[in-house]
Amino acid sequence: MTSPSTDDLLSILDVRPLGEDKFQGLSPANGWARVFGGQVVGQALAAAIRTVEGRDPHSLHAYFILGGDPSVPIDYEVDRIRDGGSFTTRRVQARQRGAVIFSMIASFHRGEDGFEHAVTMPPSPPPEDLPNEATLRGKLPIALRGYVDLTWPVEMRIVDLDRYLDPSAPRPEHRIWMRARTPLPASLPLATHQCALAFASDYSLLETGLIGHGILLGDKRLQAASLDHAVWFHRPFRADEWLLYVQDSPSAQGARAFCRGNIFARDGRLVASVAQEGLLRMRTPSPEGKAR
Amino acid sequence: MTSPSTDDLLSILDVRPLGEDKFQGLSPANGWARVFGGQVVGQALAAAIRTVEGRDPHSLHAYFILGGDPSVPIDYEVDRIRDGGSFTTRRVQARQRGAVIFSMIASFHRGEDGFEHAVTMPPSPPPEDLPNEATLRGKLPIALRGYVDLTWPVEMRIVDLDRYLDPSAPRPEHRIWMRARTPLPASLPLATHQCALAFASDYSLLETGLIGHGILLGDKRLQAASLDHAVWFHRPFRADEWLLYVQDSPSAQGARAFCRGNIFARDGRLVASVAQEGLLRMRTPSPEGKAR
Repeated sequence: MTSPSTDDLLSILDVRPLGEDKFQGLSPANGWARVFGGQVVGQALAAAIRTVEGRDPHSLHAYFILGGDPSVPIDYEVDRIRDGGSFTTRRVQARQRGAVIFSMIASFHRGEDGFEHAVTMPPSPPPEDLPNEATLRGKLPIALRGYVDLTWPVEMRIVDLDRYLDPSAPRPEHRIWMRARTPLPASLPLATHQCALAFASDYSLLETGLIGHGILLGDKRLQAASLDHAVWFHRPFRADEWLLYVQDSPSAQGARAFCRGNIFARDGRLVASVAQEGLLRMRTPSPEGKAR
Repeated sequence: MTSPSTDDLLSILDVRPLGEDKFQGLSPANGWARVFGGQVVGQALAAAIRTVEGRDPHSLHAYFILGGDPSVPIDYEVDRIRDGGSFTTRRVQARQRGAVIFSMIASFHRGEDGFEHAVTMPPSPPPEDLPNEATLRGKLPIALRGYVDLTWPVEMRIVDLDRYLDPSAPRPEHRIWMRARTPLPASLPLATHQCALAFASDYSLLETGLIGHGILLGDKRLQAASLDHAVWFHRPFRADEWLLYVQDSPSAQGARAFCRGNIFARDGRLVASVAQEGLLRMRTPSPEGKAR
């Protein structure tokens, strides 16, 4: 089994069965020192999905316990907590070298009818009117250029670009259009689009917590790490069509930022909500002049 | 061991050690058919706290798996997932008669400094200017009077009362002042106030999902149940001082509503955030005329 291509989202999400309710995922050789958190969320959800028939996930809650090593396969073990009349619950633990690096619970629901309401999509310029990634890289501060990676499996159009150009400016929200970089098969089940969205939803959210603080992701003084991650899937969507990720950060304190996201399809339907707390720690030089 | 008094929050939250990382909690005899979800969150958090030294919880993520039976003790088992340099992670599973009814992960953090920001508290009338519970019961529709219970361990002042008087009126948010009904000891550690807040945070949130749909909690056609629950603790507070719970529901669909809350201390500090999805199912009469 060889590492998936860095830009091949479906291969990255494709966990391999290893016996009863056990699966294994690999990391793309993209040069990252640690496994991308969204990859673990997406692979863990893919593992859970393989143990459930006829129901799609409607939510997941996860904690990142230890940073993952991209050179080592990730073992996913699914615990079938409950198969109920309307809901199915699965826990997934991810391990490397025997240590738990990640723990998640996902819930699945049979289709039902019910009340319908949703917040409205904020007016935003369409992705076609925004700089593409090649142009964007030239506009961004040098520290941030790695953030826009043409081999990343999710393509981005940044709406609130001025937030990077004056990083001390407060902004209420941070909007990004995103979609899978390559078209996905027409017949792909919704659950796989959900894995792709779970993957994508961990990329930019924590960065919202930096708004107004004069620091950008990529700053060498900054240590940033996702601590937890929750996704609620509201309505069907395709991950290879543009989705607007509207992100805000209601609070930061004690080296942690709490961030929330609403994800809209292009037609304005709210398709998912996201919440995450992350570590945003400014490294202080030690008396010997080294970071600690 | 006898059932705690219905209004004695500290006794309800006081889980009894039953050997290594195992605890037991009891339910007050308040006449509820099922255990209140917030009680299980609060007791599970209390169990996790007893296995951690010198760090306070900063977040929890929980799923409600099965309704709890108030006549049976609840067994809590804590799994020490990790004791790290900065963070401690605990999983707590709650069981009755051997079946998992609830699963939670909570994370604890050593104190650190960091970026500071927070959303501002919306202008709201002070609790003293709002009807107390005895007056409130007289104003509410009959179906809702049980909702305001003078023996409930958390006292409430409802800010957006008109939402109940015209249940079809859309409102962007639903605000409630709340505090422990009886003063708590001055020396109580923050973690116990956090358990109390976790308890209180599950009472009114899901109801926010009904706003604008012409249905009130207590309607016999409605089946309502919390599915998951997440709390992020941002800043210290006391649970026996008034806290403003600002709740909204970004989405409802497929018999599920997604609801969020910001909890402010009276001085305007954001002390916690909450997210929850719940089941809001309208029972349809079966051909035989019975609910199914």
